[in-house]
Amino acid sequence: MADHLQNELKKEFQLERMILFSDAVFAIAITLLIIEIKVPEVTRAVSEGTVLSALGKLVPKFVGFFLSFFLIGLYWTVHHRMCGFLINYNNKLLWLNLGFLFFIVLMPFSTSFYSDYSTPETIGLITPLAFYVGNLWLIGIMNFFLWGYIGNPKNKLAQGIPNVYFVQLAKIRSVTVPFLFSLAIPVAVFLPGIARFVPMLIPPVMKIIQRRFDKKIKMKSP
Amino acid sequence: MADHLQNELKKEFQLERMILFSDAVFAIAITLLIIEIKVPEVTRAVSEGTVLSALGKLVPKFVGFFLSFFLIGLYWTVHHRMCGFLINYNNKLLWLNLGFLFFIVLMPFSTSFYSDYSTPETIGLITPLAFYVGNLWLIGIMNFFLWGYIGNPKNKLAQGIPNVYFVQLAKIRSVTVPFLFSLAIPVAVFLPGIARFVPMLIPPVMKIIQRRFDKKIKMKSP
Amino acid sequence: MADHLQNELKKEFQLERMILFSDAVFAIAITLLIIEIKVPEVTRAVSEGTVLSALGKLVPKFVGFFLSFFLIGLYWTVHHRMCGFLINYNNKLLWLNLGFLFFIVLMPFSTSFYSDYSTPETIGLITPLAFYVGNLWLIGIMNFFLWGYIGNPKNKLAQGIPNVYFVQLAKIRSVTVPFLFSLAIPVAVFLPGIARFVPMLIPPVMKIIQRRFDKKIKMKSP
Amino acid sequence: MADHLQNELKKEFQLERMILFSDAVFAIAITLLIIEIKVPEVTRAVSEGTVLSALGKLVPKFVGFFLSFFLIGLYWTVHHRMCGFLINYNNKLLWLNLGFLFFIVLMPFSTSFYSDYSTPETIGLITPLAFYVGNLWLIGIMNFFLWGYIGNPKNKLAQGIPNVYFVQLAKIRSVTVPFLFSLAIPVAVFLPGIARFVPMLIPPVMKIIQRRFDKKIKMKSP
Repeated sequence: MADHLQNELKKEFQLERMILFSDAVFAIAITLLIIEIKVPEVTRAVSEGTVLSALGKLVPKFVGFFLSFFLIGLYWTVHHRMCGFLINYNNKLLWLNLGFLFFIVLMPFSTSFYSDYSTPETIGLITPLAFYVGNLWLIGIMNFFLWGYIGNPKNKLAQGIPNVYFVQLAKIRSVTVPFLFSLAIPVAVFLPGIARFVPMLIPPVMKIIQRRFDKKIKMKSP
Repeated sequence: MADHLQNELKKEFQLERMILFSDAVFAIAITLLIIEIKVPEVTRAVSEGTVLSALGKLVPKFVGFFLSFFLIGLYWTVHHRMCGFLINYNNKLLWLNLGFLFFIVLMPFSTSFYSDYSTPETIGLITPLAFYVGNLWLIGIMNFFLWGYIGNPKNKLAQGIPNVYFVQLAKIRSVTVPFLFSLAIPVAVFLPGIARFVPMLIPPVMKIIQRRFDKKIKMKSP
Repeated sequence: MADHLQNELKKEFQLERMILFSDAVFAIAITLLIIEIKVPEVTRAVSEGTVLSALGKLVPKFVGFFLSFFLIGLYWTVHHRMCGFLINYNNKLLWLNLGFLFFIVLMPFSTSFYSDYSTPETIGLITPLAFYVGNLWLIGIMNFFLWGYIGNPKNKLAQGIPNVYFVQLAKIRSVTVPFLFSLAIPVAVFLPGIARFVPMLIPPVMKIIQRRFDKKIKMKSP
Repeated sequence: MADHLQNELKKEFQLERMILFSDAVFAIAITLLIIEIKVPEVTRAVSEGTVLSALGKLVPKFVGFFLSFFLIGLYWTVHHRMCGFLINYNNKLLWLNLGFLFFIVLMPFSTSFYSDYSTPETIGLITPLAFYVGNLWLIGIMNFFLWGYIGNPKNKLAQGIPNVYFVQLAKIRSVTVPFLFSLAIPVAVFLPGIARFVPMLIPPVMKIIQRRFDKKIKMKSP
């Protein structure tokens, strides 16, 4: 094999390695969510009714699991799309990416914290919800910076990004999820438990933002 | 490298990334099964007999571990075969796949739930078994949809699928496992614990279904 | 790209996927070993001495962790070497491999069981050691079958295997580790705790076996 | 495909497999850090204040998580850079690498040990800090040996390493982190809790060392 080609293949593998390492972290964080849900304890005098009611008490935990699974999944698809443009890497990118992964890894804790405090007695507390939303903000902000860094042509990391509007849209989308969840906090003061219905707002809001940018991106002016 | 070739390689890597991410989730879910089995606690006045009897009480947990390991393994081989036809991906496929993985990730919980309630006192309860079977149904149904989506030539995702009967067979096979386990529920009402022998039915039933389709697939008509 | 080449690349990726899935399972099992070692609990009236003595009580757990880490590592290097010959796969290989991985996944439990029962009061018990050795036997036997299946030219799975003696050696090596550990069981009856020094026998015994086969393999007769 | 090319591709895949296995172990160890942080227990009579104060008590755990995440991340980037030079592997490299990974896997325990003993009552204890620093030393030393082994031209494992000074620099950098943390131990006797600010010294010290070597490396002599 020609040396030049081998070097290029090596560089590509190094880049792939960063991406596959990220995937592994995503995969572990998304799977660890389940180990926070404990099976209701077995007692001798147990009946169908007590098992069902014990299962019922786990509902907020399943909702949290569901929510976080798909939020981590959402950021994974974003990471997947983003890395689709990468043709190079540098040390700063490795660290920005590690910073992003740090907050992904924090998610099982935040989820568990938020879910554990979703009992009827504790659903009114703002701290666990705020912590969860704060985690989402930090993921969103790191994602914002990643798009900015990768999307900056000066850094020569990406190829095939249509234009600046595309990166702008991606950056705005990065923080849309935490922004929508933030709206839930004041609402939660009066209507506890509403936060978990926020994700239903994500698809329509994303579509509205998308449509606003679609024309600009298609114009293909810088 | 020519730009066209590089784009194609990039697309292929993006597809591989989705597959390897799925593999990681499968691998973690299948390995997490073991951490639900706790070593019998050590007490000072312990004898060979007490250790053996404590180990004996873990038998239902080992059976559950064994069962779920090979069921997850089965769906992994199916996923492996299915992805062997993939030549492209789109956003909907990523999300369908994430939905499928969601129920794979749920398996360590379902297994633990079902196993914990397999003590002599609780083996008669239907809820844990129904939950486990429900989990299998959701895996099976998501798998059904994945085959349908990938197998649909309009979506231009796959290459090399012999004909429509092949996809039909795959779809039927997807739900065969949960269907067989469902049969175990009414039986379990009268003969508790029978459900764990259902997997023995899987190979012969699969073969019967296979044989029925083999001719159709070989005809290679649409 | 030519269709033929693409098919071959696809097949190769499918094979790699099986291997990388195995790697992930190995990696998770080897890392899960650590979560079985719990930090000594913090009490208010704690001194340097009590922490050190609490740490001292963890020594058998660290020994178990060390032992199992390198035994899993050993079987990983064997799996790595074995897969280096693979050029194809079939359904039976996928399942044999899953069976092999099943017993790898069992290792964190066996290790924990064996280590927990290595306190001065329980070191004399044979059950935990026998369970651990049993686990090693099952890994070794599955490895034995994998070599046999891959090494059989009729199955057309491998390329580059020197000759039948090479496969014979590999098969014997597969069961050497559990065999040596088995010797420790009768010894353990009289000298509890000796089993953990067995691994020191592995390198010299392996070398003796290796030397006996080296000539035969070099002859390159079938 | 020509046999020669296929063999070379196979060898490359075997090398990649070692690297991706290492990545998986890194990814799992880095993610397991979070499961050591437990959500404060929910009690019925809970107020915003009690949750916040319970969260406050977790601060040392979060600091430990943050610290270890980026230290493991740092060694991952080093491993990433190091493997960028690899063009071959041998059995000894596999085992050196496993030895290195062993101490990476130990990090979740060391972190948890050090963090758990960072309560106001126990922050003065040297044992947990010394254990943590000891773990870093063992990672650093293994990394030192890995650079030495890979960097030795006799072993024919690497390609593209500029010169001996480059390897010398890498070896010195390997042990810089544990060295800096060691300085914290005597300080900790008088100023408990100072150790966690040591990482702030890492970037400037690294830069100073780097600058000292930069000229030598650029000279490209030997």
